Amino acid sequence: MNKFEEKTVGMKPIFDGKIISVQVDEVELPDGKRSSREIVRHPGAVALIPLTNEKKIVMVEQYRKPLERSLLEIPAGKLEPGEEPAVTAERELEEETGYRAGKMEYITSFYTSPGFANEIIHIYLATELEALDNPADGDEDEFVELVEISLEEALECIKNERIYDAKTVFAVQYLQLMEKK
Amino acid sequence: MNKFEEKTVGMKPIFDGKIISVQVDEVELPDGKRSSREIVRHPGAVALIPLTNEKKIVMVEQYRKPLERSLLEIPAGKLEPGEEPAVTAERELEEETGYRAGKMEYITSFYTSPGFANEIIHIYLATELEALDNPADGDEDEFVELVEISLEEALECIKNERIYDAKTVFAVQYLQLMEKK
Repeated sequence: MNKFEEKTVGMKPIFDGKIISVQVDEVELPDGKRSSREIVRHPGAVALIPLTNEKKIVMVEQYRKPLERSLLEIPAGKLEPGEEPAVTAERELEEETGYRAGKMEYITSFYTSPGFANEIIHIYLATELEALDNPADGDEDEFVELVEISLEEALECIKNERIYDAKTVFAVQYLQLMEKK
Repeated sequence: MNKFEEKTVGMKPIFDGKIISVQVDEVELPDGKRSSREIVRHPGAVALIPLTNEKKIVMVEQYRKPLERSLLEIPAGKLEPGEEPAVTAERELEEETGYRAGKMEYITSFYTSPGFANEIIHIYLATELEALDNPADGDEDEFVELVEISLEEALECIKNERIYDAKTVFAVQYLQLMEKK
C-alpha cells in the first residue's frame, strides 16, 4: 500500500500536548514536486458497543469542547502506551459504564481522519454485561452521564443529531445489520 | 445539548496551517476545577458514495501521509469557505472521478474525532453517473487512482484493511443496509 508514496524530506515539530502532537512534514510528491502535510499524531483509541441483555445500547453523554456541545456516544477511551486494545476496552467499559462484559468481541478498526490525523479506533462488541458494585473511576476531568437506549431510539438520535460522531453512527449501523442477519 | 458544559476561560493559539489550526483552551469544568483541551480546527468536508448503473462503487486510492500508506476511500474533499456542501460534493465528484451525478442525495453528517477535532463530514449518495469528456482537474498536489468495485469486493477490502477509514466503512455499511431493505 505505497501507491503515490510521498517521501519525507523534512519535518517540523509544532506542538507536543497531553493527547495530540502536531507536525508539518515537507514531502516529495510522485511527480518530484514538493508540498507540505499537516499531521496530528494521536495514540489511538478503543470504542465499545455495550449491549445489555435487554438489547439496550449503553451510551455516554459528554461535553465535547471542540464542538461546544454535548453528544451521545458509545463509550471510548485512548490507548495507553503498550496497552493491548482489548485491555483498554475492558477498562473503559468499567470506568465509563460500571459494567463488566462476559463477552468482548473485536469487530473492526478504522482511521477517523486519514487526511490529517493518524488516530485509529478499535471497536468491540461487549455483551453478557454485569453491573459492578464498586466500579473503578474514570479520568477526573471527564464528566459523563449514562444513557441506555434501544436501537430504534438510537436511530431517532441520529436523525435529531444527538448522536453525531463517526464511531457511534458506525455502531448503530452495525447493530442494524446484526438484526437483519 | 449543553450538559456538562465546559466554560472557556482562556485560549492559546498554537498553529494556523493550510488545512488545520490548533489551539489549547483552558476550561472550567462542571465541578469548578480547571483543565485544558487541545483542539484541532478543520473546515469540514464532504464525501460521496458514487454508485454506477452497474452497482459498482467508485473509490479513489491515495497516499495518506499521516499513516505512511495508501488507502482505498470514497471520494471526499474539504469545504471551501461559504460553499454549500452539495456544491462541494458535485465539484469533488467531477474532479476526483470524472463523473457527473444525475442524482445527488444527502445521507447524513458526522464528526470524525469529537474528542480533539471539530471536523464534520457530510455524506452524499451520487447515482445516475455520467462520465464527462473533459472533467475539471483536482488539486495539483493530490495523486489519486480510480477504482470501481462491487459491494462484495468492498467488504473484502475492509477485511484486508485496504479500506480502513471511518467514512468509507460507513459507506460500505450503508450500501449493505440499502441492499437488505
